[in-house]
Amino acid sequence: MYKIIKSLVESAIFQNFIIALIILNGITMGFETSNSIMQSYSKFILAFDKIVITVFTIEIILRIYVHKFAFFKDPWSLFDFFIVAISLFPANETFSIFRILRVFRLFRLITVVPQMRKIVAALLGVIPGMLSIMALMSLIFYIFAIISTNLYSETFPQWFGTLGESFYTLFQVMTLESWSMGIVRPLMEEHPFAWMFFIPFIFVATFVMVNLIVAIIVDAMAVLKESEETNIITEVKGGQNGLKEEIEDLKNEIKELKEIIVNSKNN
Amino acid sequence: MYKIIKSLVESAIFQNFIIALIILNGITMGFETSNSIMQSYSKFILAFDKIVITVFTIEIILRIYVHKFAFFKDPWSLFDFFIVAISLFPANETFSIFRILRVFRLFRLITVVPQMRKIVAALLGVIPGMLSIMALMSLIFYIFAIISTNLYSETFPQWFGTLGESFYTLFQVMTLESWSMGIVRPLMEEHPFAWMFFIPFIFVATFVMVNLIVAIIVDAMAVLKESEETNIITEVKGGQNGLKEEIEDLKNEIKELKEIIVNSKNN
Amino acid sequence: MYKIIKSLVESAIFQNFIIALIILNGITMGFETSNSIMQSYSKFILAFDKIVITVFTIEIILRIYVHKFAFFKDPWSLFDFFIVAISLFPANETFSIFRILRVFRLFRLITVVPQMRKIVAALLGVIPGMLSIMALMSLIFYIFAIISTNLYSETFPQWFGTLGESFYTLFQVMTLESWSMGIVRPLMEEHPFAWMFFIPFIFVATFVMVNLIVAIIVDAMAVLKESEETNIITEVKGGQNGLKEEIEDLKNEIKELKEIIVNSKNN
Amino acid sequence: MYKIIKSLVESAIFQNFIIALIILNGITMGFETSNSIMQSYSKFILAFDKIVITVFTIEIILRIYVHKFAFFKDPWSLFDFFIVAISLFPANETFSIFRILRVFRLFRLITVVPQMRKIVAALLGVIPGMLSIMALMSLIFYIFAIISTNLYSETFPQWFGTLGESFYTLFQVMTLESWSMGIVRPLMEEHPFAWMFFIPFIFVATFVMVNLIVAIIVDAMAVLKESEETNIITEVKGGQNGLKEEIEDLKNEIKELKEIIVNSKNN
Repeated sequence: MYKIIKSLVESAIFQNFIIALIILNGITMGFETSNSIMQSYSKFILAFDKIVITVFTIEIILRIYVHKFAFFKDPWSLFDFFIVAISLFPANETFSIFRILRVFRLFRLITVVPQMRKIVAALLGVIPGMLSIMALMSLIFYIFAIISTNLYSETFPQWFGTLGESFYTLFQVMTLESWSMGIVRPLMEEHPFAWMFFIPFIFVATFVMVNLIVAIIVDAMAVLKESEETNIITEVKGGQNGLKEEIEDLKNEIKELKEIIVNSKNN
Repeated sequence: MYKIIKSLVESAIFQNFIIALIILNGITMGFETSNSIMQSYSKFILAFDKIVITVFTIEIILRIYVHKFAFFKDPWSLFDFFIVAISLFPANETFSIFRILRVFRLFRLITVVPQMRKIVAALLGVIPGMLSIMALMSLIFYIFAIISTNLYSETFPQWFGTLGESFYTLFQVMTLESWSMGIVRPLMEEHPFAWMFFIPFIFVATFVMVNLIVAIIVDAMAVLKESEETNIITEVKGGQNGLKEEIEDLKNEIKELKEIIVNSKNN
Repeated sequence: MYKIIKSLVESAIFQNFIIALIILNGITMGFETSNSIMQSYSKFILAFDKIVITVFTIEIILRIYVHKFAFFKDPWSLFDFFIVAISLFPANETFSIFRILRVFRLFRLITVVPQMRKIVAALLGVIPGMLSIMALMSLIFYIFAIISTNLYSETFPQWFGTLGESFYTLFQVMTLESWSMGIVRPLMEEHPFAWMFFIPFIFVATFVMVNLIVAIIVDAMAVLKESEETNIITEVKGGQNGLKEEIEDLKNEIKELKEIIVNSKNN
Repeated sequence: MYKIIKSLVESAIFQNFIIALIILNGITMGFETSNSIMQSYSKFILAFDKIVITVFTIEIILRIYVHKFAFFKDPWSLFDFFIVAISLFPANETFSIFRILRVFRLFRLITVVPQMRKIVAALLGVIPGMLSIMALMSLIFYIFAIISTNLYSETFPQWFGTLGESFYTLFQVMTLESWSMGIVRPLMEEHPFAWMFFIPFIFVATFVMVNLIVAIIVDAMAVLKESEETNIITEVKGGQNGLKEEIEDLKNEIKELKEIIVNSKNN
């Protein structure tokens, strides 16, 4: 029994069936956004959705049965587990968030298609190298958010009323969206020296962001470089070892020669 | 007859004539946008346009006659073929799209000038390495478009009314154009937590885009690197082979010496 | 006494205590921006602030006592010194700038946490390589600011009234924020050729900025490259020296052989 | 006489004097933008300006006298020549352009300070590698400008009225400034499919720009790479030549040995 289920779960047919189901579910979720389609076909679409979630639940149960504890150690499996678990919650008015998270089910395409998984793993692999710069960025943001709230919360409460609003506005300024015409020029009518706060902030924030991107590039190149270094050294060492053997041969020849001479002398 | 046409089509004079015709046609198409010029010279310009399309049609026919099936295997030739074919369609009111696509004829400059062709080939060569990240990007866009349509289609139908409009608005947000002052701040007056949707979207979208650019850079560097690796290894191997020959010479010398000694002993 | 204080100041417990204090102070400073929290707890928060600044002052005094003059040679220590000194100034109405700079105290997290210090040092290490391009950028900005003030100060005093305002507006144009719809299109209604000033400015400014970023990337890669070069050469030299020793051995063998032969002849 | 003038023109004192004069002139030009300063000191400032241009004219004449024809072959000298020549034109109302170009005199700082000259030379050295991509970009812009003028000149003459206006608007769209809220959304109210023109344009334009930047990075790295390659190969070859000499020595030893044996046999 266990063996049959294991070979079923791991079979290409089963996995392609799941992929097809996710894609179809993606299409029906797209249809759900259209009122005119929903008026005519809502029954079919909602029924299909029920089928999908049932199949997914069975699939997860089978995979837990097959892999046992190992299932919960694999982050991709855990992701599948939570995505399916969310879909099982009742999506009523009070928990409308679950209705929205339901759409995240389509992200299962990433965990099911190996190429997608590889790219996402590569993208996530970039994050650890960014953490320390991002910690610094958070500190800078926090300090500038406190200062801007202190300075402008009374005159411009719509942008800097609370610490959270200041965070949002500073993020907007960092993306350079309407930073001058929308935010700083109006501010400067009340606080003529506001530019002394925002121009340095833009300089620091963009400088750190540029260095973050440079860090990503350098990290990616370091991998390339290491492989190049290894290739060159391996090739060179190979050649040098060949030469060493040749010289070893020579040594033996001479040793032999020596013995011949010594022997001929002794005779 | 075939040989004469072949040498004609492949001659530099013929190709320069075509290039000159495209450039002249580009200039007249520029003139066509000016009402004052068209009032005085429309006759000449439209006549010239007829001449150009006639010459192009003859050129394509000759090239098909010369290269036979090979013509349809070369993507550049196929591009020329379709561009000229489009120009032959009647550009009346109902098919005004053909009138517009007519201008694409100027892109023939790319297929005719070899340097241009090289650059475009290099640019197109970048695309395969981008496909998997772009597939991921499409998935992310699709999921966020469904969610935003679900959340905001009723309150802000002008931006999120249909799935297509959500796609467009999310693309605008990704380019950071008026994302905050134009879209998210108005949204937050109705949905105070809209930033919890858009800030993560901006983070994810820009992160993936940055990694797309890094991938292009790394791909370009990998080519450079490979040539460097090959150059170094070739040079090193060349030197090592030289040494090997020297050692081989030594071996022969010793072998000879041995023979001399053995011979002298035997005598 | 000196030894006890030295070991205290350098102990991990003491440093972690300082780190904890900075973080707690960061949280209370965040609370200070909220009116509702301040109405209930302002006493506690202000008292805690007094404690923090007292502890910091004692810490700095102890560190000066321990390190003597060396304290003032370390830029990180000097930074701590000024940050704490600023906090000791009375923060009344006339010197409200000190109240704001007080928040910079949280930047002490950088000087206290070694990982943070390392990143900031790396970021600051990028600056010297940028100075010459930034000097050129300043010259370009200065010249364009003078010209734009000459041209537009009378018709658009709100943007180009003084040299300082022109600087600010040109910086906004360089960040591409509302450069066309906000600045250049209104300008072109009065000065139809304004685009002949701004389009070249945008070209030059973005070209220089792109090259600044390229310089940062190349600098970062040069470090990587140097280490690779050193590694390869070291490995190759190591192998070549091994071969040299082998050949040296051979030489000795032959020398010995020669002696044997010469001896045997002489006998 | 010639020698004295030559040594004068090339002396460090003379060049520092010119640098000082340019900087002082830069400051007075800054003062000229201020009405309040000009009301009090315009006499002095205008007199100083006359002195500066006189000194510059004399300097150029002396340099032509010293370097003869070589002066006109050096692009930096030619730049100086034209900058000074422009300043000599009368700056009346009809030729107000000369009054503006007068400020370009400050760019002489680049030609006079060697470090500045080096950076500008490096920046200009990047341009040849960009020309072919920029030619392609121009073609794309031209074609899209013709199409947009054809499509939108009647409904939105303020943005696409003439070919030139379309160029300007497309450049704005490429910089992503207000492309959606300012241009495409208003357009879509009249032409619902306008996004089918602008989204592809943004994709193509940003794709080409990204590849332009990548080309700059790769060019800069190629220089670095070549030096690394040369260094490694030189080092390796050096070591291999050392080994070759050692083996050569060995050969001679064996040859000698052979002679000894042959001689001893013949005796």
